[in-house]
Amino acid sequence: MKVWITTILAAFSLNVHAQNVTIDKDLAYKLVESLTVEVGPRLAGSEADMRSVLWAEQKFTELGFDKVWREPFDMLYWERGQASLKVAAPFHQSLVVTALGGSIGTPFDGINSQVVMFNTLEELKKADASKVKDRIVFINHALEKDIRGGFYGQVVGARATGAVEAAKLGAKALVIRSVGSSNNRFAHTGQMRYEDGIERIPAAAISVPDAQQLSKMLAINPELTLNMQMSNNLPGTVTSHNVIAEIKGSKRPDEIVLISAHLDSWDEGTGALDDGAGVGIVMATAALLKQEKPERTIRVVLFGNEEGGLIGARAYAAKHHKQLHTHVFASESDFGAGRIWRFDTGMGEQALAFAQELQKKLAPLGIAMGPNTASGGPDVSMLKAQGVPVASLMQDGTDYFDYHHTPNDTLDKIDPTALRQNLEAWLIMTREIANSQVNLRQ
Amino acid sequence: MKVWITTILAAFSLNVHAQNVTIDKDLAYKLVESLTVEVGPRLAGSEADMRSVLWAEQKFTELGFDKVWREPFDMLYWERGQASLKVAAPFHQSLVVTALGGSIGTPFDGINSQVVMFNTLEELKKADASKVKDRIVFINHALEKDIRGGFYGQVVGARATGAVEAAKLGAKALVIRSVGSSNNRFAHTGQMRYEDGIERIPAAAISVPDAQQLSKMLAINPELTLNMQMSNNLPGTVTSHNVIAEIKGSKRPDEIVLISAHLDSWDEGTGALDDGAGVGIVMATAALLKQEKPERTIRVVLFGNEEGGLIGARAYAAKHHKQLHTHVFASESDFGAGRIWRFDTGMGEQALAFAQELQKKLAPLGIAMGPNTASGGPDVSMLKAQGVPVASLMQDGTDYFDYHHTPNDTLDKIDPTALRQNLEAWLIMTREIANSQVNLRQ
Repeated sequence: MKVWITTILAAFSLNVHAQNVTIDKDLAYKLVESLTVEVGPRLAGSEADMRSVLWAEQKFTELGFDKVWREPFDMLYWERGQASLKVAAPFHQSLVVTALGGSIGTPFDGINSQVVMFNTLEELKKADASKVKDRIVFINHALEKDIRGGFYGQVVGARATGAVEAAKLGAKALVIRSVGSSNNRFAHTGQMRYEDGIERIPAAAISVPDAQQLSKMLAINPELTLNMQMSNNLPGTVTSHNVIAEIKGSKRPDEIVLISAHLDSWDEGTGALDDGAGVGIVMATAALLKQEKPERTIRVVLFGNEEGGLIGARAYAAKHHKQLHTHVFASESDFGAGRIWRFDTGMGEQALAFAQELQKKLAPLGIAMGPNTASGGPDVSMLKAQGVPVASLMQDGTDYFDYHHTPNDTLDKIDPTALRQNLEAWLIMTREIANSQVNLRQ
Repeated sequence: MKVWITTILAAFSLNVHAQNVTIDKDLAYKLVESLTVEVGPRLAGSEADMRSVLWAEQKFTELGFDKVWREPFDMLYWERGQASLKVAAPFHQSLVVTALGGSIGTPFDGINSQVVMFNTLEELKKADASKVKDRIVFINHALEKDIRGGFYGQVVGARATGAVEAAKLGAKALVIRSVGSSNNRFAHTGQMRYEDGIERIPAAAISVPDAQQLSKMLAINPELTLNMQMSNNLPGTVTSHNVIAEIKGSKRPDEIVLISAHLDSWDEGTGALDDGAGVGIVMATAALLKQEKPERTIRVVLFGNEEGGLIGARAYAAKHHKQLHTHVFASESDFGAGRIWRFDTGMGEQALAFAQELQKKLAPLGIAMGPNTASGGPDVSMLKAQGVPVASLMQDGTDYFDYHHTPNDTLDKIDPTALRQNLEAWLIMTREIANSQVNLRQ
């Protein structure tokens, strides 16, 4: 720990003494490295989640933020147990499986049942209940790759609501092909939902090679049975936190430029891409801009429990509902650590000339102007819904779903050069907005 | 199953009726697909190992081999249990770990100990016992990539004998960085050895990202402790088998051209690259050459328990010791499914002109002439040691150690195009040798 602090202090003391302000371009990387090595996985509501909150407060303080605080919120805690999925006679193999977040467990001896396969959630919805009843539903929907991760939205429905749709038709459990684009043998977790009045059935994901394996087995023997065992816990309501810190504006301190990421992660990787990278980027951005004395206040929000369904963001939006007129802008970094390639906005028309000037400053980094339809990021979309202007520095997500929500989301997957480009872009965007007087609202 | 057999029969009936013999270029792929889907992982001595023996006998029979038999041998069975490796205070994280083959387990509550890191086995050997005593030794030796997998031999010593060297200095356990070249978060298993008179300590491997993680943690806090828990079993002696089949030579049936692979695999993947691909290649080669009525007998040997230390190969060499003069040639496919790029020999000087003519027939497949230093393959090296001439069709192994001995060794990692090229090369080599009268001996 001492080594780390010394490095940061050294970088800052250099800055203080230099005529031209120098920037530690590796600060974002150092932060995500510290978070993933010293805290690691940090499932919302867990003991590690609390350690990540303490980590964030400590780092904000070390980095010289003017104000650091946490805002508690209640959440339903879900805890992963063991999971196993075995093909019974005639093939006798284990498949690589992970419970979906929020799923109940199985009876102790597991669920033994034949399987019915569908290619998509839509196919399942149209199925005859007689084909599904008492079976394990297997949705084998492959995810395609693109720079925007645009196919994710088409496939993730099976994860979110597949258990509800399967239960409506009398299924005993749900197994999905991972919502992931890699053929590495990792199962992707992620949040699923139940619906009141519909039976709750266990839900899990198998890796892409295991989905291929299972479909080949079913082609040979459609009667094969699976044994599914899971021991997840739903212990009840716990407290988690958003961690917030500010660099106070030098001229218009009451105008808040909010930049954000989420602090929580799924529990099997170390949450490097999702969303340690974002945490590093936005913490570093504000810390490095402090020396420039920005005119507006820069508020960094590290949201809690994004993964469970934007729980921290909802709490933030509710708590600050009456002050959101002071939020002149909001943005979130939560799509990994790939190079930024486009600057999308979600602002009033009158602000687009300003946005285009801003994009000219981003252009040397290879960043084009995008449409005025940005969400601002998952958590920030809660603020946009209440009128806060937003932008999205769009990251190259071509490989994002190779790692997302798997044990393989670790620090080594971050390209330090791409992360530096992210930091440079965030510095430019945040600086320009913090020093402007333009009204960005619609 | 029926579909599969019908396809094969269809291919063969076509061949029988055609004037020009046709070749099912996908037969090797179909065989490895069948083995990995219908049997899957097949750890030597396990129930799945016996299923793989039955699978091989059935496939040889279906493919029309003239003679099919199995040869039993005794082996010490080792069974994987659970494994966990946790970083205790202050970091509280789990590392991805796998037991090394042959390792004992830990006491039920695990081993709690500080860690001492070495970069190589050589460094450990030179260490002062006072630094090692009562600690967990961590050897963090990275594997480089090349087409021949040539760095493997430099690194694998830590896996094979690291526990012995660590125990000599009083260590409580051994943890190695996986002998693998991928940064995917899979731990590589593989056989380790104990030595009589040296205390037996548990030995495990962590994935490459986890090795990086642990070394970063140790840089921050050299005092950190690990908790290692493993529950492996060594139930004792069991019987496994080599499975053997022949296409009888039309002119010189007593001269045996032996082509081979190993049937067993490690237990976490489905053994597609190691060595299902080889099984498919050599079974398909002999099956397809049957219709050409080769002059010498082609014997396919699927060795058992290669992974445990060439146990099946040693049994074969011992059993056939007095008949090895009838073995005019031997070769094994056991380096994955990458394209073949070189033809290496291990023959008498008088045979090299013949080998060069043979290479000219391989050249259109992009295969160059190599040196006369081939081992013939791991199992076949036991035969070379007794004077049997050998060759090695060298496969591109650049990515082999990305998958080798991990849960990620699955069918999807095989490129069907590269596998076809393998089959074509094996057909050429085996045909030329089976139809020649050249003495290949040294």
